[in-house]
Amino acid sequence: MFHHVDARFCSNCGHAITRRIPPGDSRLRDCCDQCGAIHYVNPRPVVGTIPVWDDQVLLCLRAIEPRLGYWTLPAGFMEVGESTAQGARRETEEEACARIELGPLFTMIDVPGVEQLHIFFRARLLDLDFAAGAETQQVRLFSEADIPWEQIAFRTVATTLRLFFEDRARGRFGTHTSEITATLPRPRE
Amino acid sequence: MFHHVDARFCSNCGHAITRRIPPGDSRLRDCCDQCGAIHYVNPRPVVGTIPVWDDQVLLCLRAIEPRLGYWTLPAGFMEVGESTAQGARRETEEEACARIELGPLFTMIDVPGVEQLHIFFRARLLDLDFAAGAETQQVRLFSEADIPWEQIAFRTVATTLRLFFEDRARGRFGTHTSEITATLPRPRE
Repeated sequence: MFHHVDARFCSNCGHAITRRIPPGDSRLRDCCDQCGAIHYVNPRPVVGTIPVWDDQVLLCLRAIEPRLGYWTLPAGFMEVGESTAQGARRETEEEACARIELGPLFTMIDVPGVEQLHIFFRARLLDLDFAAGAETQQVRLFSEADIPWEQIAFRTVATTLRLFFEDRARGRFGTHTSEITATLPRPRE
Repeated sequence: MFHHVDARFCSNCGHAITRRIPPGDSRLRDCCDQCGAIHYVNPRPVVGTIPVWDDQVLLCLRAIEPRLGYWTLPAGFMEVGESTAQGARRETEEEACARIELGPLFTMIDVPGVEQLHIFFRARLLDLDFAAGAETQQVRLFSEADIPWEQIAFRTVATTLRLFFEDRARGRFGTHTSEITATLPRPRE
């Protein structure tokens, strides 16, 4: 779910992969000595929103692993062919069945330990006809005082919520970058 | 270089790939009917900097395809295990042999047609000891009036430079999001 799986076979020709540093490169790559393909691996963008209704924020109770039973902002892996804004809107529809007006970029948070980049946009709920999507047990609105901080699914979500309430308190929203460093990088061989 | 290659074989077990919509999903994925692996594909982050010295901006003349012989800001694919900031700094060192103080996020530009997300940070050159890296023919500083707009390698770079000079002219730098839409999405089967 979180990490890519090391390639053992070439996805182009099916030959066994050799992990080596290609000429002119400085990193170990998944290389195919039969067809010459080099299979690069890159961090994956996760996109989501902070849907707001009056002074409340929408959160989703996760129905799937990881972090089943914890609360999250609607977010998920960006798909090829879509923009970050389209992906954030799609995830909000899929997880919370919610219609939003998408606002500006709010947080871009690196999570190098799991090879991800989390991107959240502010958003305004257009109505209260939200509902739990397939990967969600429950959707509800929370005032700042009611946020279940101990049951937030991911640290990027907690960071985004904390920054959101800080900016709201001072009456000015910015764009924030941050990094979650404590997760140990997965060893690569 | 720009698009992923459609998988024909499972990188986990070497069996032939079937392109189908997995249960509970809504998109065609590269699925393996032998080992059960689903090989997701996601857009790739490209990270770079706008290195500044006094009123000038550093550009690199590309020595490799694509866009060999065109000027670019130092930028490249983000590697697993690094943050956007680390990647932007690394690319600046690799392409321009330049030491920088990294500044704030400046642009995040979607390029869905090539399945990329381009991210540029402002930066301050610490000295003038820059030089062409392995993928660069020449590195030089340009004043705004001298920017070779017709020889800029990528539209995300031209957009970032234009926004940079606009912000500088009004004396206040923001964070900008944008999307390059004209490149047609590659058909996926």
